[in-house]
Amino acid sequence: MAAQTQTILPSYVAGRWWSPENPQKVTEVADASTGEVVARVSTDGIDTAGAVEHGRTVGQKALGELTIHERALKLKQLAQHLTEHKQVLYDLSYATGATLKDHFFDVDGGIGTLFTFSSKGRRELPNANVIVDGAVEQLSKDGSFLGEHVYTRMPGVAVQINAFNFPVWGMLEKFAPAFVAGMPTIVKPATPTGYVTEACVRLMVESGILPEGSLQLISGSARDLLDHLDYRDHVAFTGSAATARSLREHDNVVNGGVRFTAETDSLNAAILGPDATPDTPEFEAFVKAVFTEITSKAGQKCTAIRRVIVPKERVEDVVAAVAERVRRRVVIGDPRTEGVTMGALASKEQQTEVRKAVERLVAAGGTVRLGGPDEAVDGAGTGAFFPVTVLSFDDPETPEVHFVEAFGPVTSVIGYEDVDDAVRLAALGGGSLVATVCTNDGPTAAAFAAGIGAHHGRVHFLNRQDAKTSTGHGSPMPHLVHGGPGRAGGGEELGGVRGVKHYMQRTALQGSPDILTAVTGVWHRGAAANTVTREAVENGTGEHPFRKSLETLRIGDQFASELRTVTLEDILEFAERTGDTFYAHTDEEAATANPFFPRRVAHGYLLVSWAAGLFVEPAPGPVLANYGLENLRFITPVTYDDAIRVTLTAKQITPRVTDEYGEVCWDAVLHNQHDEIVATYDVLTLVAKTWPTA
Amino acid sequence: MAAQTQTILPSYVAGRWWSPENPQKVTEVADASTGEVVARVSTDGIDTAGAVEHGRTVGQKALGELTIHERALKLKQLAQHLTEHKQVLYDLSYATGATLKDHFFDVDGGIGTLFTFSSKGRRELPNANVIVDGAVEQLSKDGSFLGEHVYTRMPGVAVQINAFNFPVWGMLEKFAPAFVAGMPTIVKPATPTGYVTEACVRLMVESGILPEGSLQLISGSARDLLDHLDYRDHVAFTGSAATARSLREHDNVVNGGVRFTAETDSLNAAILGPDATPDTPEFEAFVKAVFTEITSKAGQKCTAIRRVIVPKERVEDVVAAVAERVRRRVVIGDPRTEGVTMGALASKEQQTEVRKAVERLVAAGGTVRLGGPDEAVDGAGTGAFFPVTVLSFDDPETPEVHFVEAFGPVTSVIGYEDVDDAVRLAALGGGSLVATVCTNDGPTAAAFAAGIGAHHGRVHFLNRQDAKTSTGHGSPMPHLVHGGPGRAGGGEELGGVRGVKHYMQRTALQGSPDILTAVTGVWHRGAAANTVTREAVENGTGEHPFRKSLETLRIGDQFASELRTVTLEDILEFAERTGDTFYAHTDEEAATANPFFPRRVAHGYLLVSWAAGLFVEPAPGPVLANYGLENLRFITPVTYDDAIRVTLTAKQITPRVTDEYGEVCWDAVLHNQHDEIVATYDVLTLVAKTWPTA
Repeated sequence: MAAQTQTILPSYVAGRWWSPENPQKVTEVADASTGEVVARVSTDGIDTAGAVEHGRTVGQKALGELTIHERALKLKQLAQHLTEHKQVLYDLSYATGATLKDHFFDVDGGIGTLFTFSSKGRRELPNANVIVDGAVEQLSKDGSFLGEHVYTRMPGVAVQINAFNFPVWGMLEKFAPAFVAGMPTIVKPATPTGYVTEACVRLMVESGILPEGSLQLISGSARDLLDHLDYRDHVAFTGSAATARSLREHDNVVNGGVRFTAETDSLNAAILGPDATPDTPEFEAFVKAVFTEITSKAGQKCTAIRRVIVPKERVEDVVAAVAERVRRRVVIGDPRTEGVTMGALASKEQQTEVRKAVERLVAAGGTVRLGGPDEAVDGAGTGAFFPVTVLSFDDPETPEVHFVEAFGPVTSVIGYEDVDDAVRLAALGGGSLVATVCTNDGPTAAAFAAGIGAHHGRVHFLNRQDAKTSTGHGSPMPHLVHGGPGRAGGGEELGGVRGVKHYMQRTALQGSPDILTAVTGVWHRGAAANTVTREAVENGTGEHPFRKSLETLRIGDQFASELRTVTLEDILEFAERTGDTFYAHTDEEAATANPFFPRRVAHGYLLVSWAAGLFVEPAPGPVLANYGLENLRFITPVTYDDAIRVTLTAKQITPRVTDEYGEVCWDAVLHNQHDEIVATYDVLTLVAKTWPTA
Repeated sequence: MAAQTQTILPSYVAGRWWSPENPQKVTEVADASTGEVVARVSTDGIDTAGAVEHGRTVGQKALGELTIHERALKLKQLAQHLTEHKQVLYDLSYATGATLKDHFFDVDGGIGTLFTFSSKGRRELPNANVIVDGAVEQLSKDGSFLGEHVYTRMPGVAVQINAFNFPVWGMLEKFAPAFVAGMPTIVKPATPTGYVTEACVRLMVESGILPEGSLQLISGSARDLLDHLDYRDHVAFTGSAATARSLREHDNVVNGGVRFTAETDSLNAAILGPDATPDTPEFEAFVKAVFTEITSKAGQKCTAIRRVIVPKERVEDVVAAVAERVRRRVVIGDPRTEGVTMGALASKEQQTEVRKAVERLVAAGGTVRLGGPDEAVDGAGTGAFFPVTVLSFDDPETPEVHFVEAFGPVTSVIGYEDVDDAVRLAALGGGSLVATVCTNDGPTAAAFAAGIGAHHGRVHFLNRQDAKTSTGHGSPMPHLVHGGPGRAGGGEELGGVRGVKHYMQRTALQGSPDILTAVTGVWHRGAAANTVTREAVENGTGEHPFRKSLETLRIGDQFASELRTVTLEDILEFAERTGDTFYAHTDEEAATANPFFPRRVAHGYLLVSWAAGLFVEPAPGPVLANYGLENLRFITPVTYDDAIRVTLTAKQITPRVTDEYGEVCWDAVLHNQHDEIVATYDVLTLVAKTWPTA
């Protein structure tokens, strides 16, 4: 850290570390607890246009040479590398005022996000660069003209402009989905904690895992970066509503089509259900949640609980319980000091802002029930400490409660009359990232979900079942969307593969089955196929596709069986052996009376079992297992003396990047003797990458 | 129409027809061909705040009392009503300059969109008001804390601000998805053709089908409408980039969180593949597509082909072929006149605009190859006629080709070197709604899709297979997204159920299985269940859920079977009967060598067949048929002497609004004798709404 205090914090642009040589304007960043200078920041003369160009050319090219699974695997490697070196980040992060427990959220939370996107990218997305979205639409009666949607990566750069409170997680949660999508990232962290981000980027660069141009860092002001962006690029902002506004007004956003998304602080609520009386586990869970959200990161979380909305007769109970917990558990101080449980705010500026906000809330009618701006805190001279502060309001509609945000360990408690009133009060926040609702009553939960759902990006229900296992009100999970309407910025981040798609363009495709097959890499019914029959397999003129490993198997490889006749005896025997004696298979009169069947019919399970018998290749081969089945629909009933045949076609091939096999999805169609479609489904198999030829 | 020329065109606000009493400013609208005044337009003194309030209260309430399927069914009824009365709309539409063929796109296209959304809403969405999005995420190891996403309707109004070119389709394509979602609509049509929209709204209102407050009309300037909107509301704009910009800069969009989406005109391309030489069917299809797009609606379509991008050695062939087709087929004039194939532009103002744009293209280096601003057209004195105009450019990178839009029967032809060059030229449009690519070569199609996909909302491939069946370059289909990045506005409309979700908020939910079950109406594994065993069914103490009609069946109703042991003989016999003699079932040594199996194992199909036998209720009852199966995964292999049991739980119930039955999805879980999960899947059945009790 000594070096950092003498030199300017470097940026990483166009593949090299860069610092201004003779900076005009330098910002000094102080340790949040001690006031010592820990970093000097300036981007005077940085080549932002060059950074954008580097991402669009070098970064796009390098990322495009990998598939989604290959990129996802790299995320896992990066996560492993950062895990090995996370102590470096912990050590630096204390200077931001954060405790070890806070580091877990920021550093480990960020690394966990890389792991989750690595895993989801490989399990839930194709090993390709085109993602098919939804079902094929048959747009002509004869099936020669189809419609379908695909996602392809956006051709520009993914710029992230981050807040000071999560220097590691804030970068990685945006980087991970963009990287899986195949978009190069340019990170611009907030100046007060950007030295932690710089250290993390340095670790990532030094790992040698990153493709060229896939990650750049601007350590300081982003300057004219937005002037170089257009509709090919994406900007994800986290921070204040005021900054979001100025970015949204930029000509390249308004007029140039830059894809802009914002996640801004909001006045998040926790609501205590009418059933959650002080003797219930829900009440206890509620108090713990409020306590955690106002003390972790010293309350400096976009998701922190700012509004505690409780039945009006419970206001005093809740205030007392929260205050008691704070008194028992909170020790404020330098987070490097033994025994300290809550650190400083990120800077003296933040301390001033929080004090002003609390004074404004008090002026609006708030009563300080705990803490408050005048409470003395040890070390407050040099450090940006602030006491845990709980306010209550007689008038729950006090406007300031619903729009003044004290971005620190501060919350307001208000009372409601009934569920409708609580819903109305929650909505006064004008759109929030998250609300917690504590109730053990299903209909109450449903009423809250219906009432507040559309005002929130996330609703977190706590009850006795999940109080111990919940990941918490304040923790955005990589699996779930993070963001919210209105005041919360109107954006969406994370959400598993949803987050990856934020960095891609959805495009409708129209064309013939052959063309859509060529474009998507997924075989479409009606497209050309390489067909072999049972006869050809048996006389040696054709190779059964089940005998092909991933080395030789191609989409469109197809096996067409012979017809097999179903007799009444077959049906009755299947009924007896399986125990499935449903009347449609066993009772001629009752079957005939059923609106869907002509007379006794074969079991659907008989049909798919026989189909497997018709397409099977019995000897050991590259097809290792049938691990599942999707989209089975029975279309035409099969009665006795009908016959069925099956056509099985390799539809999608997904080699695994970490195994010696991959998934092959086969399109299966059963026809009857009149060539009517009897059933359609997808057969899911595991197939070896290689197989010795006989 | 006489009445309309004397009075002010009415608006429909807060449930009643309204016209200003003493309007200060009145716009007179002229017949596009004859110049006669056909409507007088003014909204002086209209209560836009009242309209918003009416939608948010009365409209939201009335729509919320219906389910998605009930609203979707009303769309079908509206479509039927409009079909019966469409002649009224045809008769009026001639005055806009449109031909009968043009009416098919506008009027019938709009009605078709209602039919499609009616059908898709009922087939692809639940009969409820909460739409579950994606899979459940297990966020705690013990399954007590889950995550999931839902869509709920936005709580405000859906404002649409439309372009003049499609007065009926333009309204209905936005109204249909908003209505299915449950959002009330306020329509503001473009003044030049708003009298057609007014007639359509009148038909819809008079049908008596619309719920109160679900549709309002502002016939004329929208005035201060946006001043009353916030993050609960949605604005969908179609029109010029300049107007889109001024709307995007509105404080309620930048700062107030209004959800804003735009579809603006773009410089759409048609690209002739290198393989599509003049002797190919692709060349013919290409010429037809270009011809159609520049002549239908007299070229006044946001999707029209403005840039014809062809191999440079084909420029002359294409110009000649298009010109020849125009000369042979185009008769310009009053569309009410027999034999006329292309009508007027919508207004004299449009005529002036198009003339100016063509002059600008010529000044930039364009050569007029057909038509042009100086070509005489009969009736040009009173009518807004314009000749079909084809330009060619020596320099394909002439900037004006890629950004000057002549919104009439005008197109530019440019030549490319190779596929990469064609991709680059197409992207110079800066983002477009649609491109057509004519090729019969799969790899060429794939290269174009990868190169231009992210610059387009839709890519339309034409080849010999689909040339006759294609719905056309210029026709947005309700099944597919309409919109595009950059210049095209950055928005998305339509796209089947995707379009419905544009009017809903996606919210992440976290909670216990019981709470998520209560909130979504879908049973979650781990939630409370109402279990009956086979024993209870047999001794009369419990009712099998298959004996319950939709009147009494509830989610969570569950049947738990006894264990049944699988013997080696069972496996071998199943192999023999079905023909599925795969070695994993029949060859002990080979099975043991397989990485996934301990020794010979039961067929997956045996397991699901037996499961049906274990849960079956043989006698006729309310369960009418098993029509399919989803999400089958085999998790633990079952070898001989293992035993299996099945637990079947009513997961989702979807009564059909038009049938005496509905879909019931059952969660099926197979366990072995060690209580390990063997397989999981969803069983899809049709169940009667009522069933006589014994």
